[in-house]
Amino acid sequence: MKIRYGMIGGGEGSFIGAVHRKAAALDSRFELVCGAFSSCPDKAKRSGTALGLSADRCYGSFADMMEAERKLPPAERMQAVSIVTPNHVHFAPAMMALDLGFHVIIDKPIAFSLEEAELLHAKVQETGLVLALTHTYTGYPMVKEARHRIAEGGLGAIRKIFVEYPQGWLSTFLEADGNKQAGWRTDPSKSGAGGATGDIGTHAANLAEYVSGLHITQICADINIVVEGRKLDDDAAALLKFSNGASGCLIATQVAAGEENNLKLRIYGEKGGCEWSHTDPNTLLWKPLDAPVQVLRAGTGYLCEAAQNGLRLPAGHPEGYLEAFANIYVSFAQAVHDHATGTYSGEEAYDFPGTADGVRGMRFVEGMIASGKSDQKWTPFG
Amino acid sequence: MKIRYGMIGGGEGSFIGAVHRKAAALDSRFELVCGAFSSCPDKAKRSGTALGLSADRCYGSFADMMEAERKLPPAERMQAVSIVTPNHVHFAPAMMALDLGFHVIIDKPIAFSLEEAELLHAKVQETGLVLALTHTYTGYPMVKEARHRIAEGGLGAIRKIFVEYPQGWLSTFLEADGNKQAGWRTDPSKSGAGGATGDIGTHAANLAEYVSGLHITQICADINIVVEGRKLDDDAAALLKFSNGASGCLIATQVAAGEENNLKLRIYGEKGGCEWSHTDPNTLLWKPLDAPVQVLRAGTGYLCEAAQNGLRLPAGHPEGYLEAFANIYVSFAQAVHDHATGTYSGEEAYDFPGTADGVRGMRFVEGMIASGKSDQKWTPFG
Amino acid sequence: MKIRYGMIGGGEGSFIGAVHRKAAALDSRFELVCGAFSSCPDKAKRSGTALGLSADRCYGSFADMMEAERKLPPAERMQAVSIVTPNHVHFAPAMMALDLGFHVIIDKPIAFSLEEAELLHAKVQETGLVLALTHTYTGYPMVKEARHRIAEGGLGAIRKIFVEYPQGWLSTFLEADGNKQAGWRTDPSKSGAGGATGDIGTHAANLAEYVSGLHITQICADINIVVEGRKLDDDAAALLKFSNGASGCLIATQVAAGEENNLKLRIYGEKGGCEWSHTDPNTLLWKPLDAPVQVLRAGTGYLCEAAQNGLRLPAGHPEGYLEAFANIYVSFAQAVHDHATGTYSGEEAYDFPGTADGVRGMRFVEGMIASGKSDQKWTPFG
Amino acid sequence: MKIRYGMIGGGEGSFIGAVHRKAAALDSRFELVCGAFSSCPDKAKRSGTALGLSADRCYGSFADMMEAERKLPPAERMQAVSIVTPNHVHFAPAMMALDLGFHVIIDKPIAFSLEEAELLHAKVQETGLVLALTHTYTGYPMVKEARHRIAEGGLGAIRKIFVEYPQGWLSTFLEADGNKQAGWRTDPSKSGAGGATGDIGTHAANLAEYVSGLHITQICADINIVVEGRKLDDDAAALLKFSNGASGCLIATQVAAGEENNLKLRIYGEKGGCEWSHTDPNTLLWKPLDAPVQVLRAGTGYLCEAAQNGLRLPAGHPEGYLEAFANIYVSFAQAVHDHATGTYSGEEAYDFPGTADGVRGMRFVEGMIASGKSDQKWTPFG
Repeated sequence: MKIRYGMIGGGEGSFIGAVHRKAAALDSRFELVCGAFSSCPDKAKRSGTALGLSADRCYGSFADMMEAERKLPPAERMQAVSIVTPNHVHFAPAMMALDLGFHVIIDKPIAFSLEEAELLHAKVQETGLVLALTHTYTGYPMVKEARHRIAEGGLGAIRKIFVEYPQGWLSTFLEADGNKQAGWRTDPSKSGAGGATGDIGTHAANLAEYVSGLHITQICADINIVVEGRKLDDDAAALLKFSNGASGCLIATQVAAGEENNLKLRIYGEKGGCEWSHTDPNTLLWKPLDAPVQVLRAGTGYLCEAAQNGLRLPAGHPEGYLEAFANIYVSFAQAVHDHATGTYSGEEAYDFPGTADGVRGMRFVEGMIASGKSDQKWTPFG
Repeated sequence: MKIRYGMIGGGEGSFIGAVHRKAAALDSRFELVCGAFSSCPDKAKRSGTALGLSADRCYGSFADMMEAERKLPPAERMQAVSIVTPNHVHFAPAMMALDLGFHVIIDKPIAFSLEEAELLHAKVQETGLVLALTHTYTGYPMVKEARHRIAEGGLGAIRKIFVEYPQGWLSTFLEADGNKQAGWRTDPSKSGAGGATGDIGTHAANLAEYVSGLHITQICADINIVVEGRKLDDDAAALLKFSNGASGCLIATQVAAGEENNLKLRIYGEKGGCEWSHTDPNTLLWKPLDAPVQVLRAGTGYLCEAAQNGLRLPAGHPEGYLEAFANIYVSFAQAVHDHATGTYSGEEAYDFPGTADGVRGMRFVEGMIASGKSDQKWTPFG
Repeated sequence: MKIRYGMIGGGEGSFIGAVHRKAAALDSRFELVCGAFSSCPDKAKRSGTALGLSADRCYGSFADMMEAERKLPPAERMQAVSIVTPNHVHFAPAMMALDLGFHVIIDKPIAFSLEEAELLHAKVQETGLVLALTHTYTGYPMVKEARHRIAEGGLGAIRKIFVEYPQGWLSTFLEADGNKQAGWRTDPSKSGAGGATGDIGTHAANLAEYVSGLHITQICADINIVVEGRKLDDDAAALLKFSNGASGCLIATQVAAGEENNLKLRIYGEKGGCEWSHTDPNTLLWKPLDAPVQVLRAGTGYLCEAAQNGLRLPAGHPEGYLEAFANIYVSFAQAVHDHATGTYSGEEAYDFPGTADGVRGMRFVEGMIASGKSDQKWTPFG
Repeated sequence: MKIRYGMIGGGEGSFIGAVHRKAAALDSRFELVCGAFSSCPDKAKRSGTALGLSADRCYGSFADMMEAERKLPPAERMQAVSIVTPNHVHFAPAMMALDLGFHVIIDKPIAFSLEEAELLHAKVQETGLVLALTHTYTGYPMVKEARHRIAEGGLGAIRKIFVEYPQGWLSTFLEADGNKQAGWRTDPSKSGAGGATGDIGTHAANLAEYVSGLHITQICADINIVVEGRKLDDDAAALLKFSNGASGCLIATQVAAGEENNLKLRIYGEKGGCEWSHTDPNTLLWKPLDAPVQVLRAGTGYLCEAAQNGLRLPAGHPEGYLEAFANIYVSFAQAVHDHATGTYSGEEAYDFPGTADGVRGMRFVEGMIASGKSDQKWTPFG
């Protein structure tokens, strides 16, 4: 049985809404049954009917949607919401959904502030419902392979972690030209305390912690607004210390003109290193000390179970961003299904980013911003 | 409105069936409503219900399915069939579907023999129905970009075409171990006259012709059975002549041990060359004579309309094999929709591989096999 | 003690002459003591003195040089000649040098025709002198590593050999503009029977045979003059059969507009494959069947002795074309030294290309041209 | 006329001594005439005669060498010294050479301490002699191309500079096993204040400044000794501020297990970015904002004069580390020659690293170490 879900945000012209819908559709585990695609009722209806929804399930607000859907027969009403609005409209619908018994899948970062994130975390604990956060990059199978190998000790004790996320798309003052994506991301009232830090820095930090199994404990950040007139940071870099004493660097910039979206992680331990890059996500370079680099590839027989589970195709058939995204939806579907059958005991047991990651993400943003303002080298974190 | 389709083949353990279903699902243009997933009725039912179909629309044979579905109310019955069986079971269901008024999408090669292909081509002409052929690789946006640029004269007159498709998965006598994929592909009674030639050589030839806009006119082939005991060719190479006098080479081998699925095309003209490789399908290398190579990338603003239409994500967000596959489904959906509204006038106007490509594919297989047996250097083709 | 050598050809404006001098100089095993750099006496003198030679050892012809040098005291006169003239001026100076007791190092191809090559081979046998041929690419350490591993059975029985050498520099009618390099290479009276076939096809064939340890036994060639007005082939491709029954393809084209000098070799056997490309000559990709590709790298500790001997730097310090070239000079120096001490017993014991390779190279050129003219598919070779 | 030089250090077992000799030999601009290859007289003599020197010019100390050589006839005695000893033996021979009228080429870093560097700088000013410093990486032609294009404004105002130099060879406690290279580099009495910082961090900083044309003005460094028992830093990272307000990151680590020697520079400005990596030194990626990346290549016709001057081969013929090194020797030769003819007016006019770079390098080391010890975020520099 497919999970019936409603979408909040993601109307005409949205980028990430369509990504969520395609990711949900790919493996036929979800059915979109309703939506509050826009705060403009006409646009909301137009967006929904264009997606094949009946007009009566295209709502003018998320509150209307939730109120109406809860009154539908259980076999018909939505079971989950997918929240794809800008950051400042994450908390209210998520909280309401949890209060009314709907599961939640939500674009990152989880909320506008650390405080909101912590309230959501507590609410999930209280309700026992499922909340998944789409930190896409940890959905990639070869990222899971790296995590598995490191957890098994394949690199020995970890010493160095370099994570970088260079983009170039905010190299000009794009928000002045009415660019929708740039607009809210550079607006402190919609994006939160961090610009690049929140938009992509959280991905980088999440990836580094997910793969290494370590936590960032200290930050020394350099936070910049490079493009004149911009209101939020478009460039960040930090020296890092990790829970086991390892050190590292994090780069998250949106003014690396000429770069696309090249998230890249390198981790080094006593026995070797590994490297994963989003430009070639089906490859994991495995670098044993004093032996040839091995090119580990998606779709092969030698990968760990978590990687295998995230793959749909044999080696040499590239899977991409939507597939990684869909992996989070599949794990979310499994959790929702387990909840329905009474076997769900919390996000810890599942391979999807949840509220704990969400809280750490917001803590990262606030820590980076605080460190950026500090004259002291190290700011404790987390 | 989604197009309702039934699947023929693709039951438990099938590879390509799941690929078709995911490709159809990705953009929410199709709804799977029935299937004849296996010639074993139990397995057919089990496969279908696992996909969420009701048991009464899981049929024991394609004939049963078509007979039953045509009696359902128009708004309910399937509109199209997706045929994902081995090659020897392409013709009968496709022909029956066309005779009964169902559109067809079919895995390549179109049929078991050139004769079958020509009959299908004629039937499509006769019925005016839509038949699409999933030559996946021409679904890639950067392949479309290459085609567009060459058609516009960006390389000048074409002189050389190198296309290669090295795989390694048949390096051992896999079919002896009960491997299902290897089994039928190496069995002349199921695969047809060509092994590697049909399975991957047709992709290579189709890609070369699609991108260059030229036709192969002469072949000089070396066809081998490399693995002892095998019954069909697992290795082929050919010198080629094209309709404008250009020459080229084609390699299609399944015994390149250590290779995955690296289809690669290089075309050179008077003014420069270009290169596309399936290992990095979101990149097209554009090589002007005496100037720096340009790295053209999916998701950017400078691509042609056909490439843009096949993309779902901005630059730096990799799309892969399923997305390319889905592009054929999207074009097929458009054609079916146009047919319903009376505006469909034939496959020539659409950017999907159709029966003309299917006929050329089968002609290629038979031409390669004939050339392989000949002592003469050149065998005319097409 | 450095070996004293004289150069024939390689005056002002020469490309390959400077390459030979730098390769000879790199490891301080040679001292240039004289030269017949040009058939124009003024230019010969100017070229030589610019290189620091005294005017009295800058000769107006190779014959003058040999006659004069043989009369110098043994400790002073040249011991070897380096012949870097166009192909039609290889034979006469090489033969004279051997007749007068000088060792010879000579740019490839060894001569203008197979007949000349065979005479040189016989003369070397007769005189017991050293003749080395600068098939540069086999001088690369990672090429030697590939050869070693294949000889040790690392790939099992060899099945497929793909070698390609695409260049683009002759995409236009360059010889009409007075380009010196293009001029003689496209002139049948200077280059010999083959254009691209001789200039780069011989490198490709030599590399394939050197690494695989196999011999080409049959050729099916397509030979083209692509650029209008040209007098020799600028494009060649061939299907190949090897001595153990393996098959392969060879591409040698100079009209692949936009390509530089990308010689590339791929060999596949029962147990895996390997790939070496001149664009990244310090890497050898080693591809075991069903296991991760290994990236073997120059300068590491795990390489074979022949590879180690050809390296000057630790891993990560790129060595290039001149170093590969110099490796042939070093081996030549060793042979000349051994000859002086009476321990030289023939080229077979040394890792440099010699007259046997030279004869095979000319046989390859003549075989390709003959096959190109034949209607029969296969032309026996060698 | 070749420049006669003597070498100090670089005896048997030395790595960098052989590099200098090969670099000097490559272009036939230098002749090695004497040496003080070792402080052990026997070894010194053995090393020198193995290189073809007469025993009487193999000296037991640099002082002996300079005293003896200055007494030789001008046309015979050495004109320059090449100093390839560990860092703590740079200053004394360099100073003595300058005092006695010999030109100096010296491995980096220029000296053991900033104070020594400044004294050498002053001495060069005073004597008017030539001192070149072998910061190899700025000798690469594509590095010069990047510098040229940035100076011409090709990227607009520079905003971000990322330079990284990961090595893995000190991942274990190698110096405990008697490894000669590791021994002195990790010994504060021989290497100076910095380990990785001095050995490779200086290269990274020099490269960033050379290409960008900017100066580092502030450092925030994290300096670590990762391998237990080691006495000097083997790992360093820093946030940077540059003279125009740009910011950046520098990584210099020798414990990135599995890495070779991958110095990499990325610079971003208002109008685009560029990237150069030592793993592929003949390529410069040029990344205009909102346009395709261009792959600029060594040996092509479109490069600037400084790049052209540093190249010996046409496109597609890889040049490497020794050629880059040799480019510094060639520039040094030109300066020495100009000095002889009275036209040398100081290092500023030449494209080789000199004493100004040497002083900045030592300042960088001392600044990094100071910042590493500081609790304050930013340490002013330079």
